[in-house]
Amino acid sequence: MDPFLAAAIEEARLGLAEEGIPIGSVLVLDGAIVGRGHNRRVQRGSAILHAEMDCLENAGRLSPAQYHRATLYSTLSPCDMCSGAALLYGIPRVIVGENRTFQGPEDYLRRRGIDLEIRDDAECVALMEAFIAASPELWNEDIGQE
Amino acid sequence: MDPFLAAAIEEARLGLAEEGIPIGSVLVLDGAIVGRGHNRRVQRGSAILHAEMDCLENAGRLSPAQYHRATLYSTLSPCDMCSGAALLYGIPRVIVGENRTFQGPEDYLRRRGIDLEIRDDAECVALMEAFIAASPELWNEDIGQE
Repeated sequence: MDPFLAAAIEEARLGLAEEGIPIGSVLVLDGAIVGRGHNRRVQRGSAILHAEMDCLENAGRLSPAQYHRATLYSTLSPCDMCSGAALLYGIPRVIVGENRTFQGPEDYLRRRGIDLEIRDDAECVALMEAFIAASPELWNEDIGQE
Repeated sequence: MDPFLAAAIEEARLGLAEEGIPIGSVLVLDGAIVGRGHNRRVQRGSAILHAEMDCLENAGRLSPAQYHRATLYSTLSPCDMCSGAALLYGIPRVIVGENRTFQGPEDYLRRRGIDLEIRDDAECVALMEAFIAASPELWNEDIGQE
């Protein structure tokens, strides 16, 4: 398996072990992971720390040129906020574990020039299916859905 | 003046006093401010704490129903990331101090159903013009521009 997707899944599992939402993300620059993170809504009472946001925050302040050659991995199709973060920084490539349990604005990202690749990974799907079945209210909160 | 825009400008001035990027934001729910924030890139070494993100984080975990009747104020036209956060939570109304010095994806927000209002406030413009002239590299970093 792609070691970077494996690292994102490891982050998702860390989140699950903390009783959080099992979504993970890593940022890859020049062949190495420079940031990793997972959803921290529960753990930090956060409204903005989706996995990708936590990952970008943990990567720290990078230069525009660095973002422009980075790849963002997420176990789940990025929502509007996280997709917007990728657009803000001009991250050219986004690798997604799965988009069966949730689908962000994928067509819009592609129209804006992002190379979006969906891996349809069974482990990513299984993590989300179990979580959504167990905690539907928390999941709806995370995606702003009544 | 609109007291909520005045509160967002106060936040921008707080950021400036901290030697940060002078952009402020407040979230209004049922006629009262429930969150306020300002850009903290410099202050916290943050890649994600634009004013609107800081404001949403400080508002804490709200219910989907609360977001759906909230109004987000920002002194500056929200970037892709902050616009995406408004879309994620289905915040129906966004009030913008000015969009002369930077313009986010305003047409896209409108197409997605957000009521976006540009106030073209002279104080908001003056804050950003002075900041961009003094710190062009920092500003480019904040908007991911080489």
